[in-house]
Amino acid sequence: MDNSATTKCMDEVAEAVTKCMTETYGNPSSMHLKGLEAERILRAAREEIAATLKVNEKEIFFTSGGTESDNWAVLQAARAAKRSGMHVITTCIEHAAILNPMKQLEKEGFEVTYLPTDEIGRVSVKDVTDAIRPDTVLVSVMGINNEIGTIEPVAEIGAAIKAANPSVLFHVDAVQMYGKIPVYPKRMKIDLLSVSGHKIHGPKGVGFLYISEKAKMTPLILGGGQQKGMRSGTDNVPGIVGLATAAKRITAGMEEESKRLCALRDNLAERVVKFEGVTVNGPVQSDETKAFAAPHIVSVSVKGVRAEVLLHALEEKGVYVSAGSACASNKPAVSETLKAIHLPKELLDSTIRFSLGIYNTEEEIAYAAETLGGLLETLRRFTRR
Amino acid sequence: MDNSATTKCMDEVAEAVTKCMTETYGNPSSMHLKGLEAERILRAAREEIAATLKVNEKEIFFTSGGTESDNWAVLQAARAAKRSGMHVITTCIEHAAILNPMKQLEKEGFEVTYLPTDEIGRVSVKDVTDAIRPDTVLVSVMGINNEIGTIEPVAEIGAAIKAANPSVLFHVDAVQMYGKIPVYPKRMKIDLLSVSGHKIHGPKGVGFLYISEKAKMTPLILGGGQQKGMRSGTDNVPGIVGLATAAKRITAGMEEESKRLCALRDNLAERVVKFEGVTVNGPVQSDETKAFAAPHIVSVSVKGVRAEVLLHALEEKGVYVSAGSACASNKPAVSETLKAIHLPKELLDSTIRFSLGIYNTEEEIAYAAETLGGLLETLRRFTRR
Repeated sequence: MDNSATTKCMDEVAEAVTKCMTETYGNPSSMHLKGLEAERILRAAREEIAATLKVNEKEIFFTSGGTESDNWAVLQAARAAKRSGMHVITTCIEHAAILNPMKQLEKEGFEVTYLPTDEIGRVSVKDVTDAIRPDTVLVSVMGINNEIGTIEPVAEIGAAIKAANPSVLFHVDAVQMYGKIPVYPKRMKIDLLSVSGHKIHGPKGVGFLYISEKAKMTPLILGGGQQKGMRSGTDNVPGIVGLATAAKRITAGMEEESKRLCALRDNLAERVVKFEGVTVNGPVQSDETKAFAAPHIVSVSVKGVRAEVLLHALEEKGVYVSAGSACASNKPAVSETLKAIHLPKELLDSTIRFSLGIYNTEEEIAYAAETLGGLLETLRRFTRR
Repeated sequence: MDNSATTKCMDEVAEAVTKCMTETYGNPSSMHLKGLEAERILRAAREEIAATLKVNEKEIFFTSGGTESDNWAVLQAARAAKRSGMHVITTCIEHAAILNPMKQLEKEGFEVTYLPTDEIGRVSVKDVTDAIRPDTVLVSVMGINNEIGTIEPVAEIGAAIKAANPSVLFHVDAVQMYGKIPVYPKRMKIDLLSVSGHKIHGPKGVGFLYISEKAKMTPLILGGGQQKGMRSGTDNVPGIVGLATAAKRITAGMEEESKRLCALRDNLAERVVKFEGVTVNGPVQSDETKAFAAPHIVSVSVKGVRAEVLLHALEEKGVYVSAGSACASNKPAVSETLKAIHLPKELLDSTIRFSLGIYNTEEEIAYAAETLGGLLETLRRFTRR
């Protein structure tokens, strides 16, 4: 139940990757047939991915994953627009792969506005509009928050940005969004969109950045001029094929799977809040806000028990969860997202995240909830001694 | 015979990658057992690779491949040392993954000295020493040239740099060197060393940068703080395990395999120079310079026949080679390396590269040479009409 940290590769993904490593292993930049074969595979993968977003295949650029995509989008969109202005807007609850490049931009003289959220983690469209200035060049808002599962109003934000100033670029970190809920960059006025392979049961070490044809962008990685000079380095064809395989399957079955996941999510949330001292954070907590809740994330605070203790106790029973967000490195830090939603101080360090994937079952949900319930009394005693 | 462009994955590499995608698929940053399992695998891979270079495992940083390693080394070593000086030294024959970041540094105000080579592609140690100034912060010289197979005197250059000024960092692009001839950074006074997985029968999309503990470096990719904050992004554990598997095997059998490849290389060179109008470039061309020749590369010029025509004629007979270097993108450009060795102008566009790997056999060498011989007469007629 830690699928927002990483997922198990689908068998068909692993098969596609293996075939490409040992049979169709050519370099797409080579001019001979072995290269051509690889190039065809690469093009097909690009087309398949573009189709899931309803964009042109020329707008898909493969990277080494979500972090590189985020770095590229934030750093280079801002740097390329430097002459138009040096103001960038983002939110307080972004992933470190956004926040740390933002800090880098600040070092380079950019000014960054960090927008707050409401108590369920939603950014306000009005706040975005109000923050836009004549020198604003980029807005970056995540699609779904990785810690509490809030769906951000990206379509509304996109429309608001373009109404205010069409030349401001809009970036969406869709690492937790893609394959979970529909995302169509054209309709949502998104210029740049980051996606990671290993969050959708695809391979690690591969992802992509959608770059609208209209966006002015420069490369982050320079070299042999692959991907029209925008991302150099021998194309990771096996990884890309694996990514396309996962993308195709995850988006094709999305509607149905999303319903299934929402049911599992609600089932889990309903079961755990019954335990003493347990609360659910973010939009899952009430029926009024559930429309803004990702299908796969349940953030749970347990009063009086440290997250790490809880995590290891659950682990012993075979239930794997995260403390706060855990796709960051393993040193625990206070979560910016949990602070943004004004979670009571004493719960900041007592929050765990359940995150579901295609392989989770109803039985597992029941087991996880029961296990948590059974552990709580013992754990409280342990941490209070 | 295009193994310098890319290689076929070893079966054991593909198996290791698959296992890690579908079984040990955890995120090393996760605190639970599934994460710990992945972290252990990651650590073992790092140790295995460090052992092949006789360095500390803390000095190995995984990247998305040779291009990212080169970008990181050049851009960040120079930027991190900016206060000490803004002069960088490299050679005219580097890969585009070095030359284009150098151009980026020039845009940022750095001055770059591009050293020439002799007629077999060797950089002179004296030229390096002479070029070092009080404001020099970085020297980057490739280990083996990817187009003509010249082995550069990196150990001598390393010693010369450190004698002149120990604080100047020395980077070696070892993408064509690692696994072919011995490379020991400590002994050779190398501070930064780039390696790619897919050139050694490992996976695409993965490589590493060796960074000496003593070197002052900053990250290129920012985010969740993985790899001690030096390279963020979820670790590509399957790719890394595949890389380590290939690295271990390729270095273990290197001495013997190198002898075998040298024999194949010489056999090929001797056969092809017998054809009218055919010359071999670089250190393979004479017994006096063969000590400086990589075991796996034979650069061949064919007077009066365009490389592209030759490439496609050979391809039809099942022999795959490159026109010049082909790990760059497929638009043909005049090779800086071939210009640096003062190849006659009329041969610049008539040069192909054979590059060998562990799966090439003596029979294939004989077949390739015979095929080339048989084609030449026809091809000349075709291109002269």
